[in-house]
Amino acid sequence: MERSLLVKELENCLGKDKVISDPVDLMYYSYDSSFLARLNRFIPDVVVTPRSTEEVSAVMQIAYANDIPVTPRGAGTGETCGSVAIKGGLVMDLSPWDTIEEIDVANMQVFVRPGVIHAKLNERLAEYGLFFPPDPGSSIMCTIGGMVANNASGLRAVKYGCTEQYVLGLEVVLPNGEVIVTGGIQSRSIKNVSGLNLTKLFVGSEGILGVITKIRLRVWPKPKGRGIVMAVYPSLDDAPASVLEVYQAGILPSGIEILDQSAINAVNMYRPEINLPQGEAILLFEVDGNPSSVEWEGLKIKEIASRRASQVEWATEPKRMADLWEGRSVVATAAARVRPDGSRVFAGEDISVPLAKVAEALRSIRSLGQKHGVKVVNYGHIGDGNVHTAPVIDPEKPDEVEKANRLVDEIHRLAVTLGGSTTGEHGVGAVRAMYAELEHGPAVKVMQAIKKALDPKGIMNPGKVFLPEGE
Amino acid sequence: MERSLLVKELENCLGKDKVISDPVDLMYYSYDSSFLARLNRFIPDVVVTPRSTEEVSAVMQIAYANDIPVTPRGAGTGETCGSVAIKGGLVMDLSPWDTIEEIDVANMQVFVRPGVIHAKLNERLAEYGLFFPPDPGSSIMCTIGGMVANNASGLRAVKYGCTEQYVLGLEVVLPNGEVIVTGGIQSRSIKNVSGLNLTKLFVGSEGILGVITKIRLRVWPKPKGRGIVMAVYPSLDDAPASVLEVYQAGILPSGIEILDQSAINAVNMYRPEINLPQGEAILLFEVDGNPSSVEWEGLKIKEIASRRASQVEWATEPKRMADLWEGRSVVATAAARVRPDGSRVFAGEDISVPLAKVAEALRSIRSLGQKHGVKVVNYGHIGDGNVHTAPVIDPEKPDEVEKANRLVDEIHRLAVTLGGSTTGEHGVGAVRAMYAELEHGPAVKVMQAIKKALDPKGIMNPGKVFLPEGE
Repeated sequence: MERSLLVKELENCLGKDKVISDPVDLMYYSYDSSFLARLNRFIPDVVVTPRSTEEVSAVMQIAYANDIPVTPRGAGTGETCGSVAIKGGLVMDLSPWDTIEEIDVANMQVFVRPGVIHAKLNERLAEYGLFFPPDPGSSIMCTIGGMVANNASGLRAVKYGCTEQYVLGLEVVLPNGEVIVTGGIQSRSIKNVSGLNLTKLFVGSEGILGVITKIRLRVWPKPKGRGIVMAVYPSLDDAPASVLEVYQAGILPSGIEILDQSAINAVNMYRPEINLPQGEAILLFEVDGNPSSVEWEGLKIKEIASRRASQVEWATEPKRMADLWEGRSVVATAAARVRPDGSRVFAGEDISVPLAKVAEALRSIRSLGQKHGVKVVNYGHIGDGNVHTAPVIDPEKPDEVEKANRLVDEIHRLAVTLGGSTTGEHGVGAVRAMYAELEHGPAVKVMQAIKKALDPKGIMNPGKVFLPEGE
Repeated sequence: MERSLLVKELENCLGKDKVISDPVDLMYYSYDSSFLARLNRFIPDVVVTPRSTEEVSAVMQIAYANDIPVTPRGAGTGETCGSVAIKGGLVMDLSPWDTIEEIDVANMQVFVRPGVIHAKLNERLAEYGLFFPPDPGSSIMCTIGGMVANNASGLRAVKYGCTEQYVLGLEVVLPNGEVIVTGGIQSRSIKNVSGLNLTKLFVGSEGILGVITKIRLRVWPKPKGRGIVMAVYPSLDDAPASVLEVYQAGILPSGIEILDQSAINAVNMYRPEINLPQGEAILLFEVDGNPSSVEWEGLKIKEIASRRASQVEWATEPKRMADLWEGRSVVATAAARVRPDGSRVFAGEDISVPLAKVAEALRSIRSLGQKHGVKVVNYGHIGDGNVHTAPVIDPEKPDEVEKANRLVDEIHRLAVTLGGSTTGEHGVGAVRAMYAELEHGPAVKVMQAIKKALDPKGIMNPGKVFLPEGE
């Protein structure tokens, strides 16, 4: 179908104000935060901004009839090219569709459209003493639709799990425009084992099976208390050992973050006044719950961490907690500044490894950085083995790009070798699809079979999650 | 294929000791706890007891080549005919395959074969201060494989979620005998968003997509403290209202159980010495966590419940906790004794409804019982709206059977009307497959498409979960 005809048909269907075809405007949709998008221009043919299930369905019917690729997109904060139309076609921008349809306090759940921003949802929920626990770093920008599509998590996954744990049901428009509701068409139940679990299949499917148009989320009572323990370790291996000892004491902190030496140095260079103590690693334990519990767990963690750490502090006073957390807050920005002439690229930035392999992973990444001549900064969610690596290069220099790509490839393979995953929370998108076979083996064939059953024409977000059969 | 030839081929493949074909022995495999199995004899053609992935694969290859239905089975404690071969063919008894392959303490996970008994796993885990939180009533009998296949839960789901939340990966033998591993072939990671989430698709799929041969479970630190609040409510509506107020105080108890008036009467008739106080409902709140937290939450719940309850008691002393819990412990048995000439049948026994509809559901079930002239006893996991109903009839009398079937049909429809589900935790099996369309609408077509993609010959546990296309 010719582009101008497609634009016309979409305009007839949605109205001109919901169809974007101006080349300058389309540029905005050609990237996300990924290194791949920085190196390439993936300009879509056309962008639509539907605001109802009927409109999404109408667009899908047009796309289906004409074999046009469709890439759903939220805020575009991803790091995998997941919401970028690498095969061209149509981008469906769902970010303007940001209605919180209902907060059902009595049943502790909320119904939202995909464009609702994470931080705004939690602001509204707080009025009722509720919260949606997953806490991605991009909270003030990212959409709930994007979080569901990527099964996002963040700081609190160690205690509260990932987004999937909270998704009770979804409305989904299938590739041919048909609409289904998962988890029960009229359901407001919390527990339900009826039928195949389509809800959890669509969560994390990165838009390759259909378009998520409505989300029913379980929400939880917001804990009243919070506290932070900071512990400084002269030896890297003692950090994960301390984490395990905390678990073994029967404590599940709401977050356990690590800054390794590279991250400590980056923070101190960027903001000398933070003045993080020297060590091979700093851990930040966050505990939450009722005030008695927080006190008990904080003091216990302090006692446990003191066995291995050279310096430990426990705080519940808000100002002091913010100070202790400051290093973690700025580390992503600080990482980008370790070379005045360089910038951080998002690639190989999200491996996860078993807890017992975290120290080995961090050491190996440091060695790989040296081998390829690339500066790297490491931090992350050590509580569940999720390591964020920031390679810092000059992306205008082809040789540095080449070095970074080689480094990243080795980091992904390292993760699998250590019994981990190429991605703990950011997703696969276009940038990790080539590792699906390495990580999942014959299970990829089953993924392909499901993809084919639901999207026989292969129009939904092509080129993502795994390579097509035969490639 | 003639039965004797099939038996011979299986014996050649597995050895005679792993093939059961004696009609008397086959009887044992013709039922589970369901009312349907009590009314019918579903005797399989042959039973196999494989003890390795290779053996399961070899059996599946034979079944696949010869279009023989295969029904995987654990301990047979189900209440839905899920593990009964209602279309004949082969039952695969996985209960003897009960190896705990590894407890990986450092990575807080465990690898088990499907036949491991729930209580035995938790016994072993306790040696390391760990536990697998889901807590089904059948703990001392049921297998982990059965729990995964049915996404089982029980008392603690309100805080700890269902089995699916703990399944990190599965080894599955597909209908054609191919073996896949979900969640990463070599993975020991806790967090992983790579690929379609096949793990969660297989959890709760009740054996219709493949045979689960190995399970990688996340386990958690076992909480050190526990306490019980018992609250007696003169008015039924106050019970769910109290539950909501507890949630709104930021407390998530590890269990919230209800006995309605029918259950209170049943318990007092069966064991007068328990002497439960009179009321329209009794709630039991269980809290767990560190000792400080337990004390804080227990006292807070006591205070909240006291606003509506006529009598409230808080206990942490083990003997007193056991006494308070005694009524809940015996209610299933007590329910069966409310008619000296009757017995309890397992049907319509597991609806879930939104929390705000629990009182209405209980009242409606009581009315429906009266309408159909069937005694019913109600109890359940009110914290997540999961109601267990025990119809008590004389199953030898055809008119009582007929009445019970009509009652149960109305209970299932009531659940959907109230925005609930026909099954909160027991599963669909054969007994609720006809409600799939009512509950899920067009989503059933997607389930059927996935089933067809993975099991094109339709040999895996036929007649379960949803009706085949066109029926």
